[in-house]
Amino acid sequence: MNIGIIGLGLIGGSMGLNLRKSNFAHSVFGMDANPTNASHAVKLGIVDKILPLEDLLLESNIIILSIPVDAIQKILPNILNKISNSSVVLDTGSTKQDLCKSILHHPQRRRFVATHPIAGIEHSGPMFADSDLFLKKNCIICDAQFSDGEALSLVKQIYSTMKMRIIHTTSEEHDLYISYISHLPHVLSFSLARTILKKFFKKEKIVNTMMGSGLYSTIRLAKSNPKTWLPIFASNRNNMIQAINGYIHVLEEFRYYLLNKKFHEIFHYLKKANSIKDKKYV
Amino acid sequence: MNIGIIGLGLIGGSMGLNLRKSNFAHSVFGMDANPTNASHAVKLGIVDKILPLEDLLLESNIIILSIPVDAIQKILPNILNKISNSSVVLDTGSTKQDLCKSILHHPQRRRFVATHPIAGIEHSGPMFADSDLFLKKNCIICDAQFSDGEALSLVKQIYSTMKMRIIHTTSEEHDLYISYISHLPHVLSFSLARTILKKFFKKEKIVNTMMGSGLYSTIRLAKSNPKTWLPIFASNRNNMIQAINGYIHVLEEFRYYLLNKKFHEIFHYLKKANSIKDKKYV
Repeated sequence: MNIGIIGLGLIGGSMGLNLRKSNFAHSVFGMDANPTNASHAVKLGIVDKILPLEDLLLESNIIILSIPVDAIQKILPNILNKISNSSVVLDTGSTKQDLCKSILHHPQRRRFVATHPIAGIEHSGPMFADSDLFLKKNCIICDAQFSDGEALSLVKQIYSTMKMRIIHTTSEEHDLYISYISHLPHVLSFSLARTILKKFFKKEKIVNTMMGSGLYSTIRLAKSNPKTWLPIFASNRNNMIQAINGYIHVLEEFRYYLLNKKFHEIFHYLKKANSIKDKKYV
Repeated sequence: MNIGIIGLGLIGGSMGLNLRKSNFAHSVFGMDANPTNASHAVKLGIVDKILPLEDLLLESNIIILSIPVDAIQKILPNILNKISNSSVVLDTGSTKQDLCKSILHHPQRRRFVATHPIAGIEHSGPMFADSDLFLKKNCIICDAQFSDGEALSLVKQIYSTMKMRIIHTTSEEHDLYISYISHLPHVLSFSLARTILKKFFKKEKIVNTMMGSGLYSTIRLAKSNPKTWLPIFASNRNNMIQAINGYIHVLEEFRYYLLNKKFHEIFHYLKKANSIKDKKYV
C-alpha cells in the first residue's frame, strides 16, 4: 500500500512517521507547498520521497490531505477528478460541513472519506511530527454513508494502526460540537493573550515573572498557527458566532454577579462549572 | 525553628512536606478547620502534630496562613495580637491589597510578611500536597517595607529553601497584575465549562469523545475549588471587573471581524496573539 501525503506539517508529518514505522505503508510519498517543510520531511523520515502532485496521485493508493481547510476544499475536486476508481482520498481538516457539501455531487465522492483526527497541538510543522501523536486520541469520521464501504474500511484501518478511537457523526453535527469544544477554546486563548499584551504593553517582564501554570495552560493555544486557524474560523463561521455569543452571555452573567456583589450566585456558578470534571471530560 | 501551618490544603500541605524534608523546620505543627484534612496531614507526614490555635501560636516561631483569603483577613489581626515580638507570620493568599490595608496600623504589623507563592493547581486538599510543588516557580512578596528586616529575611529563607524565585512588588500592583494573569484565566475557564455544559446538557458523552488537548487545557482551571476562588474574586473585585471588561472588549472585536468577514483583520488578530510566545511568558 502506497500512501501520498499532501501537506507535511504536524498532522501529515506524524501520520507519515506512524504509517512508515508500523509498515502499514509500503512507501510514503509527500508534497508540501513550503520547500523547507518538504526537505525537512525527507530528512526526518516522514516520507520516502517528495513527488509532484500528478506523480503522487499516480503512485499512491491512499491520498491524505493535511493542509488548511480552505486549501483542502480548493484541491479536493481536482484530486477526485484525477484519481483512479480504486484510490482513496481522506482529509484531516478541523471543519467538515462546507467541504462535504462542496463535493456532494462529485462523481468520485464515494472515494473520499472525511475525517478529523483530534490530535493537534499549538505547534506546527514537520519538526514537531511524532509517530505517537495520535495514541488513544479520538478520530471523527463524518458522513460515512457517502463513502464506499471498502474505502471507509481502509481509512478505519489507518486510524486503528495509529491507535485512535473512531467516532462517527454527520459533518453538520461535527462542526457544531467542535465549534464549542475546540474552536471556541482557541478563540478564548487568542483573546486572552491579546488582552494581556494590550494591558501590559512594554511590561512583559513583570507579567512573565508573575506567570503561573494557570496562565500557561490557558494561553497555550494562543501560539497556534494563524494559517491553520483563520480558515477554520471562516469555514465554521456561523457556529463560531453562536458559540462566542453563548460564551459572552455566560461571562456577562459572572460580571453581573460580581458587579452586584451576588457572592452566593458566584459560588453556585463556580460549583456548577466544577461538575465538568465529574463527566469525564478529562 | 518550629513552624505552625494554619490550613493544611494543597499549599500549606506542600510547604509542610518541603520544610520537614529539608530540615528547615525542627517541628511542624498544624491546624485545619476540616478534621479530615487535619488527620490526612498527620498520616501524610505534612505535620508532626495537630495543635489547637493557642498552642500552635505558642509553640511556633513562624506561622503560615494558608487558608482562603477572607479567612486570612479575619484571623490575622487576632494572631498578631497574640504572638510574641520574635514570631513571624506570613500568608500565602492570592490577593494582597485588602489584607495589607486591613492591618496597616496594627502594632505588630512589622512581624507580618505578605507573600504569594504562585504554585496553585486545580486540585486542592492535603492529598495533593507535594514537596516539589514550588520548585523554580515564582513567589511574590508584597509591601516588604512594612515588615521587619529580620522577619523578611526569614521568610525569604523559607522560599529559597523551597527553591522559589522571589519577586517584590506593592500589594496594589500585585492585585492588578494577578487579576489579569491568574484570576481572569480562572474566570474564563469556569465560564467555558459552564458554556459547554449549558449548550450540551445531557449530551456529555459526545462532548467527551470529541474532546482534545485544547479543551483539556482551557477547562483545567474550571475544576478549582469555589471555596478558595470566590473569596479571591470578591477581594479583587474592582480589578476583576476591569479585566473582564477588557477581555469582553477584545473578544467582541474578534466577533465583529468574524460577523463582517474581515478575515485579513482576523489574521492579524491571531498573529499578534502569537507574539505572546516570543516574550518568554512560557
